[in-house]
Amino acid sequence: MIKAAVVGYGNIGKSVLQALAAAPDFELVGVVRRSGNADGAPELSGVQVVDDIQKLSVKPDVAILCTPTRKVPEYAEQYLAMGIHTVDSYDIHTGIWDLKQKLDPIAKQNGTVSIISAGWDPGSDSMVRALMEACAPKGITYTDFGPGMSMGHTVAVKAIEGVKKALSMTIPLGTGIHRRMVYIELENGYAYEDVAARIKADDYFAHDETHVIAVDDVDALLDMGHGVHMERKGVSGTTQNQRLEFNMSINNPALTAQILVGVARASMKQQPGCYTMVEIAPIDLLYGDKEALIRKLV
Amino acid sequence: MIKAAVVGYGNIGKSVLQALAAAPDFELVGVVRRSGNADGAPELSGVQVVDDIQKLSVKPDVAILCTPTRKVPEYAEQYLAMGIHTVDSYDIHTGIWDLKQKLDPIAKQNGTVSIISAGWDPGSDSMVRALMEACAPKGITYTDFGPGMSMGHTVAVKAIEGVKKALSMTIPLGTGIHRRMVYIELENGYAYEDVAARIKADDYFAHDETHVIAVDDVDALLDMGHGVHMERKGVSGTTQNQRLEFNMSINNPALTAQILVGVARASMKQQPGCYTMVEIAPIDLLYGDKEALIRKLV
Repeated sequence: MIKAAVVGYGNIGKSVLQALAAAPDFELVGVVRRSGNADGAPELSGVQVVDDIQKLSVKPDVAILCTPTRKVPEYAEQYLAMGIHTVDSYDIHTGIWDLKQKLDPIAKQNGTVSIISAGWDPGSDSMVRALMEACAPKGITYTDFGPGMSMGHTVAVKAIEGVKKALSMTIPLGTGIHRRMVYIELENGYAYEDVAARIKADDYFAHDETHVIAVDDVDALLDMGHGVHMERKGVSGTTQNQRLEFNMSINNPALTAQILVGVARASMKQQPGCYTMVEIAPIDLLYGDKEALIRKLV
Repeated sequence: MIKAAVVGYGNIGKSVLQALAAAPDFELVGVVRRSGNADGAPELSGVQVVDDIQKLSVKPDVAILCTPTRKVPEYAEQYLAMGIHTVDSYDIHTGIWDLKQKLDPIAKQNGTVSIISAGWDPGSDSMVRALMEACAPKGITYTDFGPGMSMGHTVAVKAIEGVKKALSMTIPLGTGIHRRMVYIELENGYAYEDVAARIKADDYFAHDETHVIAVDDVDALLDMGHGVHMERKGVSGTTQNQRLEFNMSINNPALTAQILVGVARASMKQQPGCYTMVEIAPIDLLYGDKEALIRKLV
């Protein structure tokens, strides 16, 4: 059994608990969260909850980082040096290579493995993009997200003056172009027109078609479903017009959590170092005997 | 530059030549075919053509096997023992594990790498199936082929008494069920009804909906296009109804050849042994600097 600790206990952390319980080869050794206790969550009864991974009674083989993305580098660095593998869904696309460069030597020095940016995008979508490019090296891949809630855009709207609650939905228009549907509850005393203008002027929204809609109850609109549509038209050898397409309609935290559990399993099978998902063989994500998997999947 | 030899010169071999010419990191050191000469093929002018790989002036790093699938085990075994990596698109699904078991020790003893069953199915589809299963471990994946020509079924029809020429098209009906549209030219003196009955009774066709159509000219119907539709509905953690889908519409030999070139590249990056594509990291299939690829794809 692989001993796993869950670090951070928001939507993703909760879903990781479910995915670990459903995996035949994992044992949960505890949850690490700032409060250091279960806070009355019934699913945490019988689970050791601590505020520091070193307080766990059983040392984990792998820590599944479900913290806010900006906290990932700090935790990963610390745990790798303690001899604990780490996996995360670090999603700042422009920072991934630098994070890999930072963690790789630490992992190697300590005989540990880190698999970073493992969710669905970055993550499984990255593997599909790599595979599509292998099939047709020349050409263009488009990734269209949604319909679904954008965490980053929602946080950006919440920070704007006059907004009490917010939800920013990403709507795919094709060829990587997206519409932003922004639902807000107004703070008392603010005019819709002023707030909507501020949102549309924000750098998160200024470059996309954005619609702002005032509603009475943002909570009533929340749905954790999301989707992606990826397509590539390209050239294999000298043959044009090869068409490849990948689609998903999924519960976002559940999929992210499932992939984190897959890479936690894969972390046990790699040489020390830091990897992104495109550097991992797909079979390493799966539970089961290699012969049975190859007979079934290949 | 990776030195590659092409072994076998049918549709796939010809397409591999084009894919090698389009790849910036490969050098063709020659073609191995039974005739041992170019047979007037203009694209082979300037290419060394031999009937035995040992007659090539430059020893290849990797041999790309484009022979009939049944010849693959024999060539692979022989070349691996000579210190040449091999890649192939061996497509007898039930024989893949055994071939891996046979070639793995030979490759390890000789410090070589073999990547087997690398086309689109088995091959890139296998990677997609593995990834889909990683995303939703419980559930069902369906693979629907076509519309496109089935080589195996076409050969089976040609072997039936009264058939002069034949083409068997695979038509996808969903959930892995296929219709067989069989086009035949009749031999003189044979009745359509008798021949059609024999085709429908053949083990290749007896289990599928099969239609036999007599035509004047089978050659006029030939099209190397093919397709696949794969879908999985499954469970991530405890979350039901996760939907994943992959589609392709492609030139069959061109895609197979392109993937063979990708795994030939990947063979240079693996530890000695025999691998299927699900055991290969997607990035290893791609040309280019690792940093640039990760920045672009992840």
